[in-house]
Amino acid sequence: MKNLVVIGYGGMGGWHVQHALKSDVVKLLGIYDIDPKKAELAESRGIHAYASFEEVLADTAVDMVTVAIPNDQHKPVVIRALEAGKNVLCEKPVTLSSEDLQDMIDAANKAGKIFSVHQNRRWDVDTLAMKKLYETGEIGEIFNIESRVHGSRGIPSDWRGMKQYGGGMIYDWGIHLIDQILQIVPSKIDTVFCRLDHITNDEVDDGFKLELMFENGCRAYIELGTYNFIPLPRFYMQGMKGTALITDWRENCKVVKCKAWHESDVMPVETAAGLTKTMAPRDSITVDEYECERPVSDVHDYYRNFVKAIDGIEPQLVTHEQMMLDMKVMEAAFKSAELGQVIKF
Amino acid sequence: MKNLVVIGYGGMGGWHVQHALKSDVVKLLGIYDIDPKKAELAESRGIHAYASFEEVLADTAVDMVTVAIPNDQHKPVVIRALEAGKNVLCEKPVTLSSEDLQDMIDAANKAGKIFSVHQNRRWDVDTLAMKKLYETGEIGEIFNIESRVHGSRGIPSDWRGMKQYGGGMIYDWGIHLIDQILQIVPSKIDTVFCRLDHITNDEVDDGFKLELMFENGCRAYIELGTYNFIPLPRFYMQGMKGTALITDWRENCKVVKCKAWHESDVMPVETAAGLTKTMAPRDSITVDEYECERPVSDVHDYYRNFVKAIDGIEPQLVTHEQMMLDMKVMEAAFKSAELGQVIKF
Repeated sequence: MKNLVVIGYGGMGGWHVQHALKSDVVKLLGIYDIDPKKAELAESRGIHAYASFEEVLADTAVDMVTVAIPNDQHKPVVIRALEAGKNVLCEKPVTLSSEDLQDMIDAANKAGKIFSVHQNRRWDVDTLAMKKLYETGEIGEIFNIESRVHGSRGIPSDWRGMKQYGGGMIYDWGIHLIDQILQIVPSKIDTVFCRLDHITNDEVDDGFKLELMFENGCRAYIELGTYNFIPLPRFYMQGMKGTALITDWRENCKVVKCKAWHESDVMPVETAAGLTKTMAPRDSITVDEYECERPVSDVHDYYRNFVKAIDGIEPQLVTHEQMMLDMKVMEAAFKSAELGQVIKF
Repeated sequence: MKNLVVIGYGGMGGWHVQHALKSDVVKLLGIYDIDPKKAELAESRGIHAYASFEEVLADTAVDMVTVAIPNDQHKPVVIRALEAGKNVLCEKPVTLSSEDLQDMIDAANKAGKIFSVHQNRRWDVDTLAMKKLYETGEIGEIFNIESRVHGSRGIPSDWRGMKQYGGGMIYDWGIHLIDQILQIVPSKIDTVFCRLDHITNDEVDDGFKLELMFENGCRAYIELGTYNFIPLPRFYMQGMKGTALITDWRENCKVVKCKAWHESDVMPVETAAGLTKTMAPRDSITVDEYECERPVSDVHDYYRNFVKAIDGIEPQLVTHEQMMLDMKVMEAAFKSAELGQVIKF
């Protein structure tokens, strides 16, 4: 068991506290929040609130801190914690630029402490289902993956809507969706193309469309929308032997595999304003349709690994290299959107 | 009634013949096909087969010809027919380059005859439903339209798979889907970005992904796939007041409109690996959901207009200007795909 303090007692801070209270690998020593009201709230719930960040750092009982504060504040807090000899688990996005991240990684290396980012959505069952299909080759070699998350509430009206705090949907959701794709496709990125939405917010992106072309020929398309009153499917994947679809994270992955390419007679189909043979639906005898088994997943394995990494038993799952790659893809996405161009990665 | 000869008795030629036999505005005098077997087939069905193209042109009873032959042959046949004083209805794509099209338009203007292209899919009910939503503003100002046609039979193994005959899906389906979008969005195109598929055919594109950004801020995305064993929805449209979806051409347009933006309490939703407030589904009390009335459509209005245009009663519906714009978008799409870049239109 490692002794944990959670820095920031907002939405995700609260999640980390709840998790820690039930954890089999960490013991919650308390929280620290810059806002006295949050500290009061924690105390009212029987959770110790440290009086200052310095007090957390000075507490030699603290093995690790989880940083769950606005994105623009991650860097100084993480570096100070590392310099104080704490292991640091940071919420995503780890920071706002690759230069800043390099400084944080340097601080971790210098301190000899574990520093990793909470890429919890690697444990999303939809992502795991897609990753399995990619790896097993069940629907053949994959040439296209589309990942969409569609909401209709606009961008949150808190700091996530403000540029100075690292708001915007690339930072908030893009970091997850990019990281997921990079977990699925084991290839280098060739080009990046991104369009940002500004539907309800001019200051930061309230959605985006991001295309990654990989060197192995696979295309990944990532779309985040906050103004989609009808959501499109969560995941869509095309392979040389079939297609896979996940409607939303509650649903299983549906697969349609081609088992007989040629049919003796394709009858043209009459649509509203013309014939089509190319687009005529397949006979069911030429395909196999089924649902994949739902992957087993426990997001708390993230903390288990983190603690084992502190003890030197396992390498950390979310590595510095991966954190840097995620960051560089986000930077490339912003640059592409600014230029309105495809850019070489 | 105008006297018609159909040039080319293949798939679409057969469609034109069938249509003409029931038409209230044209009378079928016969067909001409370069292939004697097709001529025999026509005769066996009681349809007169002209012995040569010259014979068709020399027949002073012929008011108009419909050209339904491989794309690379359109230009010489159309120009010769115009020069012989026939009105010409040409299958899509009208030809393979804007230079060739200009020559054809010049020939039509010189001859003072009607020359138009069979953009029959303007009468597709799905397209008409989207056009109506765009025009009425029922879901507010439109900022995104996605048009997809997904089949799983690969590209046809006839001339449509060969470059020299003007094969490929941009020419075969792109011309329809581009023309439909240009009918819906009344704005100039700013940029074009296109990716071509080569999944089952290296010679021509067997699918494509095409983004058009309009000067009015609207984005249109057109996707044609021939290797999609699960189809994505036919049309998806986002406006400032809601979202519209058409699953496939047999289904009605479904609309979800926002009627109350703010809700008192948004409860975070627990997904597989984390919370989300941004992506929490809406309460049904904050939205109106309904199906739109199915548009009434009769593709034969194309021929009715053509005949009225010959008589000078109506302007032709598919204008030279529109034909040229469709062609230039296709050229821009090919260029963008070749460069792997967004191009200014």
